[in-house]
Amino acid sequence: MAGSELTNTKSPRVKAAKRLTKRAFRDRDRSFLAEGPQAVREALALDGVVTELFTTAEAGTRHADLVATAVSAGVPVHRASGEVMAELAQTVTPQGILAVCRFVHVSLESAVTEQARLVAVLAHVRDPGNAGTVLRTADAAGADAVVFTDASVDPYNGKCVRASAGSLFHLPVVTGAPVAQAVDRLRGVGLRVFAADGAGTRTLDDVDLSGPAAWIFGNEAWGLPEEILGLADEVVRVPIYGGAESLNLATAAAVCLYASARSQRVRPLSG
Amino acid sequence: MAGSELTNTKSPRVKAAKRLTKRAFRDRDRSFLAEGPQAVREALALDGVVTELFTTAEAGTRHADLVATAVSAGVPVHRASGEVMAELAQTVTPQGILAVCRFVHVSLESAVTEQARLVAVLAHVRDPGNAGTVLRTADAAGADAVVFTDASVDPYNGKCVRASAGSLFHLPVVTGAPVAQAVDRLRGVGLRVFAADGAGTRTLDDVDLSGPAAWIFGNEAWGLPEEILGLADEVVRVPIYGGAESLNLATAAAVCLYASARSQRVRPLSG
Repeated sequence: MAGSELTNTKSPRVKAAKRLTKRAFRDRDRSFLAEGPQAVREALALDGVVTELFTTAEAGTRHADLVATAVSAGVPVHRASGEVMAELAQTVTPQGILAVCRFVHVSLESAVTEQARLVAVLAHVRDPGNAGTVLRTADAAGADAVVFTDASVDPYNGKCVRASAGSLFHLPVVTGAPVAQAVDRLRGVGLRVFAADGAGTRTLDDVDLSGPAAWIFGNEAWGLPEEILGLADEVVRVPIYGGAESLNLATAAAVCLYASARSQRVRPLSG
Repeated sequence: MAGSELTNTKSPRVKAAKRLTKRAFRDRDRSFLAEGPQAVREALALDGVVTELFTTAEAGTRHADLVATAVSAGVPVHRASGEVMAELAQTVTPQGILAVCRFVHVSLESAVTEQARLVAVLAHVRDPGNAGTVLRTADAAGADAVVFTDASVDPYNGKCVRASAGSLFHLPVVTGAPVAQAVDRLRGVGLRVFAADGAGTRTLDDVDLSGPAAWIFGNEAWGLPEEILGLADEVVRVPIYGGAESLNLATAAAVCLYASARSQRVRPLSG
């Protein structure tokens, strides 16, 4: 991190990174921004993902290990002024360190294989914070892959990357898959395809979750459209035992994914 | 809703409602604001909770049923200009209808009785959105009560009320309880007290969840302090099967509460 500090928010280098806050430029450059020490650490753990690192002097000292890792990997590290960091960061209180990363998604075929036991599919999920939270939860629940269909939010949206808390870098992620194609593949490798929706006649408590499963989650406001419900092997709803009308999307996804993970792992006690 | 429209954001009536956006005034007036048709509907379903209703002309037409219910119940209904509504509402896009409500919380003793099977305790939860989401999830999971300890956020905070999606009005809520006193009561009525924390040596999969349970959830960033871990019968962590470091608070709470609810209800299959 020798040399001068980037102080000009209009410099070509800063502008080239800044434009990655827009999807059209992300798609063109096949690159995105990962903000904060946790995301940067996870990105650096993968070979060849980080192509540039920006850090303030202060954050560079605090996260000297990350700077050292980047330097050893031959990643250009730029010291940036607070003003430049504020320009690049999309958070109100930037953490002072930010990486330009190459796209990490993989093909449907390589993500979803015959070894898969648990897969989450985001269909029509529009809120990037929700999508990132589901990605993080799927990772925690031990999912083998997360599939973003072509009607869902961009997984490289800054809010999604942040909400995923590093999970975007942990497990195979697919983006832009047509939902019918995704379902074909999931079923083809032996997964039972559950659509999580309030329209389900059976609840989580009524279905056998011990086998390999894929879960399709829908839109925050209106759930899943008929054609997707029709594609699934079964439409299942999270039981509402109390007075709430519904659960929010990320909560419902957590309950479904963990119910599957738990049923696949825990040997039931004799009744 | 006869008479003139409130158009002056400085009128005493508007100012009296507006100050309920601050906790000190809520505590003084023992009142809070519930925004949007869903919350207003749930509040009106309880006797004597709504003391005033503000609505724009447009929202009053769209939600004529709510206005009619309020009028029949003898609740003063004020037609307000868009400007007045924007002054009172705490959302970027106000839904045009808002109720002043009396506090709905109850004592620890009346909320937590020997009939209780599932109780959620929020200890040191600071983010009102998270607290409201946990309240909604607890309601959905059929919890008998939700206890906010004295170190947690105010359940009447506008963001908490909104995130609860009406659940604040569905089940007994306790606020300001010292945690040791809450644990005594919970144990006294026969609940097993679980602290949900990454420090747990046993996971959700290793504990018997079939009996009546209380779950204590901690701070978003640092979990639960030692003295609370020490009060619980057992410290339990949500298993992380994959690469994620942790789950977010509301997600972890959903997994714990639903695991309890499910174990209490579903007769296990023979293994």
